[in-house]
Amino acid sequence: KIQFANAEDKQEFQKYPTKVGRRSLSRSISQSSTDSYSSAASYSDSSDDETSPRDKAQANSKGSSDFCVKNVKQAEFGRREIEIAEQDMSALISLRKRAQAEKPLAGAKIVGCTHITAQTAVLIETLVALGAQCRWTACNIYSTQNEVAAALAETGVPVFAWKGESEDDFWWCIDRCVNKEGWQANMILDDGGDLTHWVYKKYPSVFKKAQGIVEESVTGVHRLYQLSKAGKLCVPAMNVNDSVTKQKFDNLYCCRESILDGLKRTTDVMFGGKQVVVCGYGEVGKGCCSALKAMGAIVCITEIDPICALQGCMDGFRVVKLNEVIRQMDIVITCTGNKNVVTRDQLDRIKNGCIVCNMGHSNTEIDVASLRSPELTWERVRSQVDHVIWPDGKRVILLAEGRLLNLSCSTVPTFVLSITATTQALALIELFNAPEGRYKQDVYLLPKKMDEYVASLHMPNFDAHLTELSDEQAKYMGLNKNGPFKPNYYRY
Amino acid sequence: KIQFANAEDKQEFQKYPTKVGRRSLSRSISQSSTDSYSSAASYSDSSDDETSPRDKAQANSKGSSDFCVKNVKQAEFGRREIEIAEQDMSALISLRKRAQAEKPLAGAKIVGCTHITAQTAVLIETLVALGAQCRWTACNIYSTQNEVAAALAETGVPVFAWKGESEDDFWWCIDRCVNKEGWQANMILDDGGDLTHWVYKKYPSVFKKAQGIVEESVTGVHRLYQLSKAGKLCVPAMNVNDSVTKQKFDNLYCCRESILDGLKRTTDVMFGGKQVVVCGYGEVGKGCCSALKAMGAIVCITEIDPICALQGCMDGFRVVKLNEVIRQMDIVITCTGNKNVVTRDQLDRIKNGCIVCNMGHSNTEIDVASLRSPELTWERVRSQVDHVIWPDGKRVILLAEGRLLNLSCSTVPTFVLSITATTQALALIELFNAPEGRYKQDVYLLPKKMDEYVASLHMPNFDAHLTELSDEQAKYMGLNKNGPFKPNYYRY
Amino acid sequence: KIQFANAEDKQEFQKYPTKVGRRSLSRSISQSSTDSYSSAASYSDSSDDETSPRDKAQANSKGSSDFCVKNVKQAEFGRREIEIAEQDMSALISLRKRAQAEKPLAGAKIVGCTHITAQTAVLIETLVALGAQCRWTACNIYSTQNEVAAALAETGVPVFAWKGESEDDFWWCIDRCVNKEGWQANMILDDGGDLTHWVYKKYPSVFKKAQGIVEESVTGVHRLYQLSKAGKLCVPAMNVNDSVTKQKFDNLYCCRESILDGLKRTTDVMFGGKQVVVCGYGEVGKGCCSALKAMGAIVCITEIDPICALQGCMDGFRVVKLNEVIRQMDIVITCTGNKNVVTRDQLDRIKNGCIVCNMGHSNTEIDVASLRSPELTWERVRSQVDHVIWPDGKRVILLAEGRLLNLSCSTVPTFVLSITATTQALALIELFNAPEGRYKQDVYLLPKKMDEYVASLHMPNFDAHLTELSDEQAKYMGLNKNGPFKPNYYRY
Amino acid sequence: KIQFANAEDKQEFQKYPTKVGRRSLSRSISQSSTDSYSSAASYSDSSDDETSPRDKAQANSKGSSDFCVKNVKQAEFGRREIEIAEQDMSALISLRKRAQAEKPLAGAKIVGCTHITAQTAVLIETLVALGAQCRWTACNIYSTQNEVAAALAETGVPVFAWKGESEDDFWWCIDRCVNKEGWQANMILDDGGDLTHWVYKKYPSVFKKAQGIVEESVTGVHRLYQLSKAGKLCVPAMNVNDSVTKQKFDNLYCCRESILDGLKRTTDVMFGGKQVVVCGYGEVGKGCCSALKAMGAIVCITEIDPICALQGCMDGFRVVKLNEVIRQMDIVITCTGNKNVVTRDQLDRIKNGCIVCNMGHSNTEIDVASLRSPELTWERVRSQVDHVIWPDGKRVILLAEGRLLNLSCSTVPTFVLSITATTQALALIELFNAPEGRYKQDVYLLPKKMDEYVASLHMPNFDAHLTELSDEQAKYMGLNKNGPFKPNYYRY
Repeated sequence: KIQFANAEDKQEFQKYPTKVGRRSLSRSISQSSTDSYSSAASYSDSSDDETSPRDKAQANSKGSSDFCVKNVKQAEFGRREIEIAEQDMSALISLRKRAQAEKPLAGAKIVGCTHITAQTAVLIETLVALGAQCRWTACNIYSTQNEVAAALAETGVPVFAWKGESEDDFWWCIDRCVNKEGWQANMILDDGGDLTHWVYKKYPSVFKKAQGIVEESVTGVHRLYQLSKAGKLCVPAMNVNDSVTKQKFDNLYCCRESILDGLKRTTDVMFGGKQVVVCGYGEVGKGCCSALKAMGAIVCITEIDPICALQGCMDGFRVVKLNEVIRQMDIVITCTGNKNVVTRDQLDRIKNGCIVCNMGHSNTEIDVASLRSPELTWERVRSQVDHVIWPDGKRVILLAEGRLLNLSCSTVPTFVLSITATTQALALIELFNAPEGRYKQDVYLLPKKMDEYVASLHMPNFDAHLTELSDEQAKYMGLNKNGPFKPNYYRY
Repeated sequence: KIQFANAEDKQEFQKYPTKVGRRSLSRSISQSSTDSYSSAASYSDSSDDETSPRDKAQANSKGSSDFCVKNVKQAEFGRREIEIAEQDMSALISLRKRAQAEKPLAGAKIVGCTHITAQTAVLIETLVALGAQCRWTACNIYSTQNEVAAALAETGVPVFAWKGESEDDFWWCIDRCVNKEGWQANMILDDGGDLTHWVYKKYPSVFKKAQGIVEESVTGVHRLYQLSKAGKLCVPAMNVNDSVTKQKFDNLYCCRESILDGLKRTTDVMFGGKQVVVCGYGEVGKGCCSALKAMGAIVCITEIDPICALQGCMDGFRVVKLNEVIRQMDIVITCTGNKNVVTRDQLDRIKNGCIVCNMGHSNTEIDVASLRSPELTWERVRSQVDHVIWPDGKRVILLAEGRLLNLSCSTVPTFVLSITATTQALALIELFNAPEGRYKQDVYLLPKKMDEYVASLHMPNFDAHLTELSDEQAKYMGLNKNGPFKPNYYRY
Repeated sequence: KIQFANAEDKQEFQKYPTKVGRRSLSRSISQSSTDSYSSAASYSDSSDDETSPRDKAQANSKGSSDFCVKNVKQAEFGRREIEIAEQDMSALISLRKRAQAEKPLAGAKIVGCTHITAQTAVLIETLVALGAQCRWTACNIYSTQNEVAAALAETGVPVFAWKGESEDDFWWCIDRCVNKEGWQANMILDDGGDLTHWVYKKYPSVFKKAQGIVEESVTGVHRLYQLSKAGKLCVPAMNVNDSVTKQKFDNLYCCRESILDGLKRTTDVMFGGKQVVVCGYGEVGKGCCSALKAMGAIVCITEIDPICALQGCMDGFRVVKLNEVIRQMDIVITCTGNKNVVTRDQLDRIKNGCIVCNMGHSNTEIDVASLRSPELTWERVRSQVDHVIWPDGKRVILLAEGRLLNLSCSTVPTFVLSITATTQALALIELFNAPEGRYKQDVYLLPKKMDEYVASLHMPNFDAHLTELSDEQAKYMGLNKNGPFKPNYYRY
Repeated sequence: KIQFANAEDKQEFQKYPTKVGRRSLSRSISQSSTDSYSSAASYSDSSDDETSPRDKAQANSKGSSDFCVKNVKQAEFGRREIEIAEQDMSALISLRKRAQAEKPLAGAKIVGCTHITAQTAVLIETLVALGAQCRWTACNIYSTQNEVAAALAETGVPVFAWKGESEDDFWWCIDRCVNKEGWQANMILDDGGDLTHWVYKKYPSVFKKAQGIVEESVTGVHRLYQLSKAGKLCVPAMNVNDSVTKQKFDNLYCCRESILDGLKRTTDVMFGGKQVVVCGYGEVGKGCCSALKAMGAIVCITEIDPICALQGCMDGFRVVKLNEVIRQMDIVITCTGNKNVVTRDQLDRIKNGCIVCNMGHSNTEIDVASLRSPELTWERVRSQVDHVIWPDGKRVILLAEGRLLNLSCSTVPTFVLSITATTQALALIELFNAPEGRYKQDVYLLPKKMDEYVASLHMPNFDAHLTELSDEQAKYMGLNKNGPFKPNYYRY
């Protein structure tokens, strides 16, 4: 069992919720929770083997035992998944080719803590191709694709992760990832901040000497800013969560598709003619509204911010208060990041057969807790679909118990994951190669030029051809021909 | 075993393909083939009982044994499914109320052969409520929801159907449905023409005395027209397949949603920026193009008919020959009703990773047979998804082996099934009550006024409020205030 | 002065309203009424010459005086307009080339009565190129482009038309067109039925011997059906008004653009966020709704026909009664073909600043007459824009005094006129060359194959490439490789 | 004649181009250049009076002569225009009501230099209602609505402006505006920077004591930043050009409508099926593409910035180099802000009948100068429309000689002007009332909270109802219940 220095320490680590939902999961993850269309399911039968990976002795074909996965023999299946993922991640493959000669990560010793999926494997193998040594662990106890972990272990990447870890396993894996005799990490790639926190707390000397941290998640970034405020961040850190490409793709474009997907897979609802209210008209709300409108739904929105509300007006949506319309709605969707956006009082007034779901942030956007009361009956009608039944027989169809619909009931396209992984790779290269002094002990946004570079690496996916500025044009515009092309405050 | 009069007879009935795909399946059917999100799956465990229903002695709670289903004890589960379906089929419920007092089907003895699903059960129970006696059987050996059949049997409807019938079972069930001592059917409701054909061949005296046939499918309608041409149709028949509401909803509006759903569930592809060619710009093609364009795909079309092609132009799609674009496409979709629309030669030139699927009619639209050749490797990566691999490593992603994507990989919304069922009910009422002479021994389209009535029954689903003509306006327009509102040739 | 045989005769001809509004006007016509952006205006100054053309002696450069136009010296200006029109009417030019060798109209003596515009000139010169002799007159007293008429006269086409004819001039021109010593028309091309009626009444011997009539307008077609019913139609007539291409283009696609154009030119209104009600969801309503929704308006509809209403639901529009929403609307648009669709009572409840206009048929859709009452003040604020002011200061913005917005305040694209003109040309060729017996003394729709041919001639405008059926495919579909491709009842 | 201190001074002022094109013109301005649908034209006949306003003695009804307009007697006409504008500017009216009691501009002495239109008058009268004293002049020699200037003069606002000023008049008016015995301005509202520059140069003591400058235009803002850099800006200045509401409305939403409007008014082109290339996918390009796609055009784009290019892909537009597609295009639109985006070489390869226009910035986006060469013939076919004719007869349709299409050939909706005017008013209030120290001698962006306030004042235009945060929600989000609701870097 993982040893904590003391009770406080233990308490501190245990207070972090074992995350089961966060943006940017691969399809296999949501599949694993829904069991649909999952090819993986066929060959990752765990029923034959109840032994904990921690208790098994395994070695890959080269004799190395520096890893801990479910079953290294599944490597071949995982390799195929990785190869399929590579097809849609040509930006990383292209990055491998462009940077392979110069090995920009030669000397980098990276510890990583992310979802472990085929797409992540493409990232890790790219980092290795660019010269880095990597050790990896999972940021989520449920999301690991065991075969992929096996494939990585087989090729020699020390991976410590399996699907269905316990909380204790979780920290044990992180520790094994960091704590390697004769090897000291100098770069951290994190998704959620757990690895960073572990290193900060447990291996302060490693932390102090690190050359950079790259953090993916809202939560992790928040923690870094807190460290920075407290004057305890002694390493430059890159916030890749707020890069343009990530924000627009993860939110606007990805949600435009996943709202339809999530609703269809769970309810088979016909969108045409349905009355829908979307709470919140930020990027996620904009994506949801655009898709539903295009499918023939009649959509109205709620907003607190008059600027977003005015955009809603211009985009053709009535801006209402939820109370004004709640009785007429066929579908209610929350996208606010706020809590109690749909209250019990409003759920009481909703009509029979209405679908209620959340695309926003946490599962408190809809006051689901208020529905766990004796007068209401819950009936699970499918995976992720509950009928909550009122005494008068009214049924409200609640999806994913109010958790994120797009994570629970649909999948994230590889293309979006490719953007994220490419951004992470570039951030690592930048931090590792930056001349002394460029980055202080602070949290940085990705330089716009690198954001643009990530985008440019994805042009071939669309057979898109960029126009180049002539010298004369660049001068006229006051721009460098290679970018950046926009001021930092540009809104896109 | 079912007895055929002679070898020819046997041959004739056996030549009918045991249909596994046809429009208007309920969600439960496609679920049953894909095993995803299926609540039914949980309680319809057949592993406990390998006995053929034909060999079991069962009786419902009232002691009747005039049925043959998998397990009548599952009735309660089926009843719940029926109740849920009723929520979205308010048109039929409303029809029950409007016509219950007058019992317009009193005296009708209906034999029916359709998919047996919760939605069909709502139809059957509506017919009973309107005064009819019904006996029912399945038009498809795989599509029966056993619990629903059980629920019907429990309430006293003689049902002969279970999931996984053999060919012999299929005809045995039809025969049991028709051949009841002391009871003679006077109405036929058919989907595919098998029941009609059986009655025509085996019970010519029943056939001759029938008051009407209502046929749902393209195939069945085709057979009726052939009978009529041959002068052998001695019963008025109603072709409900070509009613406006069915055509526009089944094709345009339903496919607009199911193309997205089918592609997502099978491939998780991101639509934004994808290059797509849609072969055929009829109603199905129009639906597909509209949806994909709305999701940010770049869509072009092929057409043989210049009028449809010109519509494509006006709707913003480039009209091309498939050969001009085949190399660049990310997704190829056929919607033509024709065969060999995508040839082996074109599949050879398609790019790596391209998705190929069919939304049209039969599985010959794409020349799938040509892909079953030794130099190509097939790899099943998920249910309904094959990678066909060329010697150079190129993978083409073929969905549902070229069969209909919308049937194989997505579901038909209850709302669309409601329109179909309501149309069937009204056609039965019309034929049963028509004054002598209104219908001859021929195939008829549903009168426009009834088509309009079906639509009007669905207004409450959308809280839609029709405007009524004033007397003065009706006179000015030369219309009856209650419709029909359009000439027969109106295109909508 | 034109001589009528007797008072009844005179009365009969005078009861025909002198039409000023009818679909398919060229841009120059609406320009002439609005005086905007009109290049023509610059050189068709009539102020220098008040003499009636009937009183002028003119001859073209070849010495012919068999015409009557404003000023034959303007021919050069008109020729340029014709050349510009030819650029967008490549279908007719292509028809000239394809059919020029065979001269399919050799021997045809055509009298025509249409709007006389550059686009019509392209049609007339095509007919001449195909071998016909033509004499032409105007179907509208205001719509003639004088320079175009001059250009036609200069090249030898006897034209009798000018802008600003009196009613007497109108019939005089028709008579001059028909009544030519030693020349007898055998084909009639009409738009509105006035020419047909004149020939029928005044030259019955010409009428009886004619080989065919081609009629463009709703009104003219209506008259032909009446003649036919009365057994007085002794000539085969072609109703080109109801061809697919004309209907879909004139109504759906054309109105989709002209609703925006008409509203902008008159009111400069911003569409984004505006609440709009569109009365009637036929082809015109569908076009209007689609365009306004795309520009960010919030659109609801009214309908009497439940099928169209259901289409509206599926397309994402709330179906309401006008009374429910009238107080909230920013824009009210009628597209019904009915009368009193917007009543005085409703206009009383409309909000300040609301725009009211008509895209349907006649100027009685909005009860404009009821607004001509003493308590309301009318204020003309621009051409085609009136403020109707209520006693409390409320202003309703009425466009074109309730006449057709698309005719009064926007223009018809040359492309749409090209489709109409090509259809007319093909109908003439068909009727003139049809083997005896194909057409009886009745009114016919254009054969579908010719409708398809019209469409195919417009493929090059869009660089659209049709796919051809293989022999095998044609056989499989039961189609002729050259069409027709659809049954007559196909809805498109 | 206006006196310059010396030759250099004169030269400096004269080098400023007399602007005739700039965003945010009212409809009346573009009307005046196109002469279409202009109600104003009817009553502002200047032909009766050639006398320069500078030479006329005029007094308003109260006897004041402190103004110089064309004809103060036209005041009544102007008043009506102002009243009509007030209907669509309810935000300012609402601001009057909210702030009238506190008179937040009591003591403010504002000199203003803007377009003088009905909309501006509503702004000026709002400032007066809030307690300010105002003196006003025109920022453009052509754009003044004489009747509106008269109406302002009549109510006592000293206005110095008329339509058709000479360059000398322009500066004379500015000087009269500033230079008033016994009155010293303490606030400047400018649109273009001319007034600011005049005060800075001519009345340095006024400049130094001013409490604030509010600047509207790109050019004016650029000058302010230059002054600031040079350390010569001794007054706090507010850049209202870069406020969110202005940017998104002026560019995205406004151009979405004006591209259609501008093309239709000039060319009557049908959009359906047209092949269009839009150069530049910033806000303006996004607006153009969205509108044209919705109307059925087939749109591709060019981009230099890979992020914007990727957005284009996701939105469904092919990203190409201009050279790849130039031969096929029907319409070419520039929206880049760059120069020589369409070169002579490309214009040589363009196809016959192609429309070329500019929605971007200056008239050098299209290399129009290169078309002024002897081998090409220019033919003016309508106002703002030239045919440029190649030796082989090819015609390219050039709009507005390459100047901004939306300014030259369409209009800016009052609603957009309302947003601008409200922003200006709030910026004046903020600067005038800010506690000492809040603003230094620098250029500031409008505080986000005021941007949000501008938006909120426009909610009633759309009957939009904002949701308010509960205390608990505000706390959870870490927000003030009254905003601002977003971080400064939020992209919208």
